[in-house]
Amino acid sequence: MINVVKIGGNVIDNPEALEKFLREFASLEGDKILVHGGGKEATRMSESMGVPTTMIEGRRVTDRATLNIVTMVYAGLINKRIVALLQKFGCDAVGLTGADGNVIPAVRRPAKPVDYGFVGDIDPDKVSDKFIATLLNGGYVPVFCAICHDGDGSLLNCNADSVAAAVALGASRVAPTRLTYCFEKAGVMTDLDDETSVIPLVTRESFARLKEEGIVAKGMLPKLQNALDSAAKGVTEVRICKSDALCGSVGTIIKEK
Amino acid sequence: MINVVKIGGNVIDNPEALEKFLREFASLEGDKILVHGGGKEATRMSESMGVPTTMIEGRRVTDRATLNIVTMVYAGLINKRIVALLQKFGCDAVGLTGADGNVIPAVRRPAKPVDYGFVGDIDPDKVSDKFIATLLNGGYVPVFCAICHDGDGSLLNCNADSVAAAVALGASRVAPTRLTYCFEKAGVMTDLDDETSVIPLVTRESFARLKEEGIVAKGMLPKLQNALDSAAKGVTEVRICKSDALCGSVGTIIKEK
Repeated sequence: MINVVKIGGNVIDNPEALEKFLREFASLEGDKILVHGGGKEATRMSESMGVPTTMIEGRRVTDRATLNIVTMVYAGLINKRIVALLQKFGCDAVGLTGADGNVIPAVRRPAKPVDYGFVGDIDPDKVSDKFIATLLNGGYVPVFCAICHDGDGSLLNCNADSVAAAVALGASRVAPTRLTYCFEKAGVMTDLDDETSVIPLVTRESFARLKEEGIVAKGMLPKLQNALDSAAKGVTEVRICKSDALCGSVGTIIKEK
Repeated sequence: MINVVKIGGNVIDNPEALEKFLREFASLEGDKILVHGGGKEATRMSESMGVPTTMIEGRRVTDRATLNIVTMVYAGLINKRIVALLQKFGCDAVGLTGADGNVIPAVRRPAKPVDYGFVGDIDPDKVSDKFIATLLNGGYVPVFCAICHDGDGSLLNCNADSVAAAVALGASRVAPTRLTYCFEKAGVMTDLDDETSVIPLVTRESFARLKEEGIVAKGMLPKLQNALDSAAKGVTEVRICKSDALCGSVGTIIKEK
C-alpha cells in the first residue's frame, strides 16, 4: 500500500506542529508520498515585498510577481524545509514540483469568466506513474508542493488538494494507494462541536443520504465529492483525519462501497 | 559518458543567454546533469526585503534570514525556472538540492576564523551515487542548485563549483564522467584579451609549468587545481569553456595526463 498524505496551512504555519507531524509521517511503514499546501508565508512575503495579494472566492490571483513569490515560498522555502526535517528523521525525502520529471502536467486556467493569472488545472490521468515508481522503487519519499507547469516553459500555481488527488491516482497505477487528507477536524462530523460525532465510513450511497438529509456541513461536500471521485478512479481509500493524529485516530474513510 | 555541466551567474542573470544555453544543454546526447549557481537575484531579494547582504572575501555570510532567501531564490525561483524551460525543450529535468535524496551531505563550516553562518562544506566521497544512478537510469536529468543540508534538519548554503565537482565525482562512480565549467571566457588563456590564446590541454605536469612560469592568471589557479583534483579522484576529464559555446568550441580540457 502506498500512503499519499496531504497537509495544509494549519500544520505548515506552526513549526512545532509541523515537526511533530513530520516525525509521525516519517514513522509510517512502506511507500509514502507527502503533498503540502502553502500556508500564510506567501502572503507575508508578498507584503514584505510590496506585492498586493488578491483573492477571488478564496483563490489567489497569480500574476507574474505572485507566481515568483509562490514558487520561492512553496517550492523553495517550505518544500526544502520539510525535506531537511524528514531527512533528520531518517526519511529519504525528495522535494518536487509537478514540473520535475514532468510528473504533473497542468493547463493554464482560461481567463474567463475570472482571470486567475498563472493558475493551473490538472488532468490526473496525465500524472507520470513512471516517475513516481522510479522514486518509490529507489526507496525515496516524494514531497510535492502545488506548483506545476504547462510544458511550455511556464510554472503554474495549482490547488494542493487537487495535486494530492492527482498524485494518489498516479500512485494507484503503481500499487494500491490510500490518500489521507490531514486537516483541523477529526474527520467528517455530524456535529462540528463534538469530536465523537465523526462518521467512520462514507460510501457513494451514504454520501447521497448525508447530502439529502443535510447532515454534513456545506464546506465538506466538495471534499467528499472529490474523495469519492478519487475512489471511483482507482484510489483504494480516501481518509480525512486530524493532522495531529496521522498514526492515531482513523477519522473518516471514504470508499466506493 | 555522463556530462556534468555547471553554469554561473553570468548566464542566470541574463534571460536570453539562459534560454539559449538551456536549448544547447537540452540537445546534449546521453546522460547529463546540470549544476547552477545563484546570480544576483538573491542580493536583489535581500534588498527588497530589507535584509543586509554581507560578503567576506567574496563569500556571502548566511544568517538565518539570508539562508531563507537563498533557499527561496536558488532552490525555488531559479531552479524551477530552469526545470520548466528544460521541460519545454524536451529535456526531462528534475530540480534538486543536496538535501533531496540526501544526495550531497554537507557539514556546517566552523565559526572560526570567520563565522559565515549557514554555509556548508561538502565531502565529495559522501555524494549518493545511488540517487544519481536512480534518476539517470530512469531517463531523468538532475538539475542541482548549491543548497545542501547537514542531515540534522538544517539547510546549508554551499559553493556551486564545489557542488559541481562533488556531483561529478558521484557520477563518475556510475559511469565515466566529463565535468564542464561554463564561464565568461573561452577557456584557460595565456592572454586574457585574445580568445585564440586558449590552452587546449592542461595536465598535472603542464599545470606545474604554467604555475611556475606565471603564464596563467592568478584567479584561474584554484579552478585548475580543483579540476586536477577532480581528475585525480576519478572524473575522466574537466573542461572549461565559454557558456555560449557549450556544444561548439572545446575550450580547455584538464586531465591527469
